[in-house]
Amino acid sequence: MKINMSHGSGGKASAELMKDIFGKYFSNDVLDKMEDAAVLEINGKVAYSTDSFVIKPVIFKGGDIGKLAICGTVNDLLMMGAEPKYITCGFILEEGLLLSELETIVESMSKMAKEAGVKIVAGDTKVIEGNGGIYINTSGIGIIPADRDISAANCEVGDKIILSGNLGEHHACILSHRMEINNNIKSDCSCLKSIPESLFNDSIKVKTMRDVTRGGLGTVLNEIAESSKCMIEISETSLPISDEVRGFCDILGLDPLYMANEGKMIIVVKDEDTEKALALIKNTPYGKNAAVIAEVKEGKKEGMVVMRTRLGGSRVVDVLYGEGLPRIC
Amino acid sequence: MKINMSHGSGGKASAELMKDIFGKYFSNDVLDKMEDAAVLEINGKVAYSTDSFVIKPVIFKGGDIGKLAICGTVNDLLMMGAEPKYITCGFILEEGLLLSELETIVESMSKMAKEAGVKIVAGDTKVIEGNGGIYINTSGIGIIPADRDISAANCEVGDKIILSGNLGEHHACILSHRMEINNNIKSDCSCLKSIPESLFNDSIKVKTMRDVTRGGLGTVLNEIAESSKCMIEISETSLPISDEVRGFCDILGLDPLYMANEGKMIIVVKDEDTEKALALIKNTPYGKNAAVIAEVKEGKKEGMVVMRTRLGGSRVVDVLYGEGLPRIC
Repeated sequence: MKINMSHGSGGKASAELMKDIFGKYFSNDVLDKMEDAAVLEINGKVAYSTDSFVIKPVIFKGGDIGKLAICGTVNDLLMMGAEPKYITCGFILEEGLLLSELETIVESMSKMAKEAGVKIVAGDTKVIEGNGGIYINTSGIGIIPADRDISAANCEVGDKIILSGNLGEHHACILSHRMEINNNIKSDCSCLKSIPESLFNDSIKVKTMRDVTRGGLGTVLNEIAESSKCMIEISETSLPISDEVRGFCDILGLDPLYMANEGKMIIVVKDEDTEKALALIKNTPYGKNAAVIAEVKEGKKEGMVVMRTRLGGSRVVDVLYGEGLPRIC
Repeated sequence: MKINMSHGSGGKASAELMKDIFGKYFSNDVLDKMEDAAVLEINGKVAYSTDSFVIKPVIFKGGDIGKLAICGTVNDLLMMGAEPKYITCGFILEEGLLLSELETIVESMSKMAKEAGVKIVAGDTKVIEGNGGIYINTSGIGIIPADRDISAANCEVGDKIILSGNLGEHHACILSHRMEINNNIKSDCSCLKSIPESLFNDSIKVKTMRDVTRGGLGTVLNEIAESSKCMIEISETSLPISDEVRGFCDILGLDPLYMANEGKMIIVVKDEDTEKALALIKNTPYGKNAAVIAEVKEGKKEGMVVMRTRLGGSRVVDVLYGEGLPRIC
């Protein structure tokens, strides 16, 4: 058996690789929780996470691999309720990479780190043969205030799920670049700090947060349904999607539920907190298209996600199977 | 200008890349110290480090890329006087990688993590096109007891420098694999935990520690001479090198001063602590060939390294220039 592209999709093949190989040897109480970041006790609660970035093209509408590498790890820390503090960067450079391109990427990382309020405290660089490509790994540490308890296992019947904005923009942007389709779709790549901040500042009791990246909304909601042992029902008509992305999807036969995003998150709150939380999120820089898109329901389908369709029917939403789009992040 | 292999050597070209691009945008009080790991205040002193591994071949005599990825980051934390606690792993897999090879590597990481007493708490996997290769990034967190102050800037005139064992074994092993030379040289890849532990347990005041990896002893001592603004004098006859590696170097014209190691470190102590420290180190599993190899001297050559040669002369030892051996770690 050999590795193929689907093992990097964030969907079913990735999950199997996790279980069969990494899980078999690395299993421990922290890793087995499968959250966006590990939660550790280091004289208080600390979030700790890592992510590698292999996106192609490395510079795209709305961002570049450097911006993505900072946002990706910062967002993972935020999802655990942490205040992101420190970042490390590991660069793998292919021979032939233009120094000017590297400088653009590094400058973009520096700018993004400032915006996110994190300090880059350690780094490493390796060079391999190749054709001028670049891969970046970042890891990050954040501090979690003692009273916060955010986890994918916290959802209960009646809870509402808010999505912070339009689906599919990063995916549609990268695919447009690769297919040389000329349109105005920009990646949503951004640091989501202001969304949890606005909720915590107003004492909203946030139960679960997740950024919706590789694997898309369908996969993320399945992970939550499984962790919380609950059934989640999406309302298809509530999903925020821009006209341009919807048109793009219709032409190419793409399903926004499985498209990757890099600046979107879901927030799970109690029914009674939903209206206030939604208003707060809509007031942040990256939350103006936020919408309540799903509900945790009573039902026999524990660990499952279903969708009430536009036509009033209902269908099961599984995790992504196969490869969504290679090297999307 | 484009990236070439020498930018990954750990020598002069790497240092220039650090200064001209990463330093320009990432400069801050922590990163500018250029230690093996960042030292942070997170309710106490914490060491934080990262390293990427691109070694070829991925499995070699004495280890594999997985063992190396754990040892490399654990050793970096140890060099700051920390007790290593948590590790993250970022995998970049090339299409075509055999799952059985991946499993060997992952199993080796798990074993090494147990030996080093660290927990793997977060991970990430990406897949790229290619020919079955694998790249691994690790980051790590360690706790530094409040009374420890280890830094490359701590050396003073009269201090002695101990090297923990034979030079050049990792380098000679990897080069032998690549040239298909049949010999018994094994990589020294190992976790150095027992060495600092034995010194701290006996209350030896350790001033500086560094693992001697990419760039070799010559480069590491230059970094210390620069940080401490002192002159370091190596005694050539004192350098521990096995007969087999010495023979290998003679045939190929290699200089052990610039050869990479993956299980060797230098320890700087006061003159009066030297004898006791050496005895303690020699008593650890990876320290039996330890030797006092250099001294911090008074002299006008601040920031320089010189070597008293076998024949009684003296020559300047610069950092590695160009590429020692591509993809050595």
